[in-house]
Parts: sequence; structure tokens; C-alpha cells
Amino acid sequence: MLKDVMMSRASVRKYSDKEVSDEMLNELFEASARTQTMGNLQLYSVVVTRSEEMKEKLAPAHFNQPMVKGAPVVLTICADFNRTSVWCKNRKAEPGYDNMLSFVNAASDALLFAQTFSCLAEEAGLGICYLGTTVYMPGMIIDALQLPKLVMPVATLTVGWPAEEPALSDRLPVASFVHSETYRDYLPADIDKYYKEKEALPENQKFVEINQKETLAQIFTDIRYTKRDNVALSASFMETLRKQGFLSD
Amino acid sequence: MLKDVMMSRASVRKYSDKEVSDEMLNELFEASARTQTMGNLQLYSVVVTRSEEMKEKLAPAHFNQPMVKGAPVVLTICADFNRTSVWCKNRKAEPGYDNMLSFVNAASDALLFAQTFSCLAEEAGLGICYLGTTVYMPGMIIDALQLPKLVMPVATLTVGWPAEEPALSDRLPVASFVHSETYRDYLPADIDKYYKEKEALPENQKFVEINQKETLAQIFTDIRYTKRDNVALSASFMETLRKQGFLSD
Repeated sequence: MLKDVMMSRASVRKYSDKEVSDEMLNELFEASARTQTMGNLQLYSVVVTRSEEMKEKLAPAHFNQPMVKGAPVVLTICADFNRTSVWCKNRKAEPGYDNMLSFVNAASDALLFAQTFSCLAEEAGLGICYLGTTVYMPGMIIDALQLPKLVMPVATLTVGWPAEEPALSDRLPVASFVHSETYRDYLPADIDKYYKEKEALPENQKFVEINQKETLAQIFTDIRYTKRDNVALSASFMETLRKQGFLSD
Repeated sequence: MLKDVMMSRASVRKYSDKEVSDEMLNELFEASARTQTMGNLQLYSVVVTRSEEMKEKLAPAHFNQPMVKGAPVVLTICADFNRTSVWCKNRKAEPGYDNMLSFVNAASDALLFAQTFSCLAEEAGLGICYLGTTVYMPGMIIDALQLPKLVMPVATLTVGWPAEEPALSDRLPVASFVHSETYRDYLPADIDKYYKEKEALPENQKFVEINQKETLAQIFTDIRYTKRDNVALSASFMETLRKQGFLSD
């Protein structure tokens, strides 16, 4: 059952030497393709990286996180309105998908596909890690994988057989993210209640201490995801979207 | 096994009168929350709609598709950097998440969560339908659900016990969306090969005929997803993102 898989899963960053066969990957892709998609158009593509040469090229775009070279397979999942547009042009139809809404639609299709793949792969015993760096320097990935216009990388998964059994990471209580009928904003007492467990974790307390911060939240705002980085990366993300032809209007 | 669920699934738009209990929903939310998330921040919220009054308010935003009022439960899944930002402000940390990159990160978290939920719900026997209309008129949804700044709806799921057994919809062959090492663009012969089955389906041929079109692709470009609509909806999507505080820079 997926339910049991989910309740015991954790991201895997170290992989054994055991091969992940093309046959297995294709079966996973076929089942993943049953995922809901806009107008049955399947607005995504997957680029499969196995060669050392291509991993070398992708690694810097992912801040040289060791999973890129350490995993037998790296999957770059892309929002893709190119294939559909080529189909239209070959069928006397004028595609109008060079705009933001079409990017949002294709990115949604791609991310839903990616997550079904992740669930199926973990159910099959594979270890998976998402690389959040995908949207930081998409231009480097586009160059390495030779992505044409109307194709934009939105998720990267490293895939292999697990060589580690990582501990489960913490999660907020369900009540913290579920709202009934309308959104009720968070009062200080809600925040205290919902973040108490996360803030009390020994590893988080140690992280705060090592970095000489006062609170765990400061680890996020001052070190991991700073305003300065976010602003710079937002600008380059939009620039890349434009370069890929999604902001023609 | 999720694999078997995926290979036989279809979106369900008609639901029986049987209740979907809060207990069941909460169990599904708990398992869905094990989904991968940026920095364990869980950058999403779910608004659960059960009341007739709220369904009435949401329906027009979804072009009055009958699933909104017909489903016992409607879930609006939102990219949410509000909760994390409130946490930061309550912890002497200055959040810097009012920008495009942060929206992309939160939207990704929300969509991955939504798809795990969909897989788990279908595994449990529930019927699910995504409403692609969510990103068409997000402003109406924001007003109805009272979403504050830094919260943006990205997916809507109607959920209930199935009262129909829809046929499986068609999918492109795996080879059409998987690329090895680098992206190889599509030649006319590739397009013919990959779209042949879709174009030959009796229901699609009938659709072309009824609408007095020449090709199936024209159904998409001229009727279902037109450039004119996409351009207008792109502008209002960006305007709403700005109103929700994600384009402050």
C-alpha cells in the first residue's frame, strides 16, 4: 500500500552500485503517465541522465550536490509545451502557448507526473531525492540538456537503490495546514503550538547553536533561503522563462 | 499496489451520497504530508469545502462545472508562504518570501502534496477530479476562501465515492515524452507516430466532425485552449500573484 510507503519514507541521497534498468524505468514512466493531465495533453518531458559526461555538466547547476554524480539515474522533469506546439503546427493549427498561463499549466502537469513517479519508485523500493536547485539556475540545465523553447525544467529527481536508511524528517501537525471552509490566519499561540515540536528537535537546536542564531526561523531567513538570494533568483527565473518563450506577450 | 491503481484509474466526476468522513480525510492528509517539501517547511495549505454555501461561492470560479456542487468535499490546495512568514515574524526573523521564486517553491510543494493525496485517495477507493480552472480566475477563489497575502490557490480536487466507472483516457507512448541524455526535438514523422492513436480514437474523430474542424489539434487551439484566452488569463494570473504579494520586487 502507498499509505504504508508514505508513512515510512525519507529522501535517499546515497545509492548502491546496483543498476536501475531501462525496463524498470519505462514501466514506472508508463504508470506515471496515467497521472491527471490538462486535456490529456501530457505537458511534460523527462530527460534521463545516465552518462558521467552529462552528470558532470548538470552537477554545477545543482551546486555540486553529491547525489547528481552519485546516483545511477538523474531525471530532469520539464514543463513542455513544445511537443504539443509542434503537433499543432503539423496539423494546420496555430498554437498559442507562449505565455505564463501555459507555463503554469505545463509546470503543474510536470510536477504531478513527477510526484506519481516518486510514489511509484519508492513503492518499488527505489530511493529518491528531489533537487530543489532545479529552479535556481535553470539556464545551465537548459544548456546542458539542449532544451528548446517552450521547455522549462521544473523538478530533478536522483534515483537509485538505497545505500542508506535515513531517519524520517519532522512534519507539522495536520491541523496546521488544513482550514475548514475559509482560511483562518495564524495567531501567535497557533504558531507556538504548531512549531513547538520542530523547534524542540535536538538536531534543529544544534543547528541554531552552531550557526550562532537565536531562533530556528533565522536559519531559514538568514542562511538557507535569504531574501537577497530569492530576489536575485526570481529575476533570473523570469529571464529564463522569457528566453524559453513563455513570456512572449 | 499504487502501480495497479494507476494503471486502471480515471478521473471521477460523479459521486454517490456516501459521506467522506473527517477522520478519513485527516488520515489521508497525514500520509500526504510525508511528501517531499522544501526545507521541511511544507509550503502549502488546504481549504476543505463541505458547506453548500461555500460550494455556491466557488462554483462560478470553476465555470460552474457540476463536480463542485456534486462532490461531498472540495479541496483547494494553495501555495502558502504566509504561515512560514508568520512563524518567522514571531521568531525575530525577517521573511523574504514575497517574490516569484518563493511562489514557484510553494506552488511546487503544494502540487506534489496534491498528487500524493490524489494517489492515496484513489488507492482508498475514492474518486477524484482536478479542476484545471483553479488558475483561470484565482481572484474569485481567493475572495471566497478569504486567502491572505502569500497564499495562492494552485489546484482544486473534488473528492467523493464514485458513482460512475469512467473509461480510461488515452495516453501518449512513453517514448514520446522520454529523452535520453539530451532533448531531441520532434520531426514530422515522430509526431505522426506518437499522435496516431489519439487522432484515430472514434470520440476524437467525432469531436472534430461535430465542431467542423479539420484536425484534432484545431480543437485545442481554436476551442479548448485558445491563444486569446491564454493571453488574457496570463495577465490576470500575474495580476493576482502581485495582489497576493508574490511580486513585491
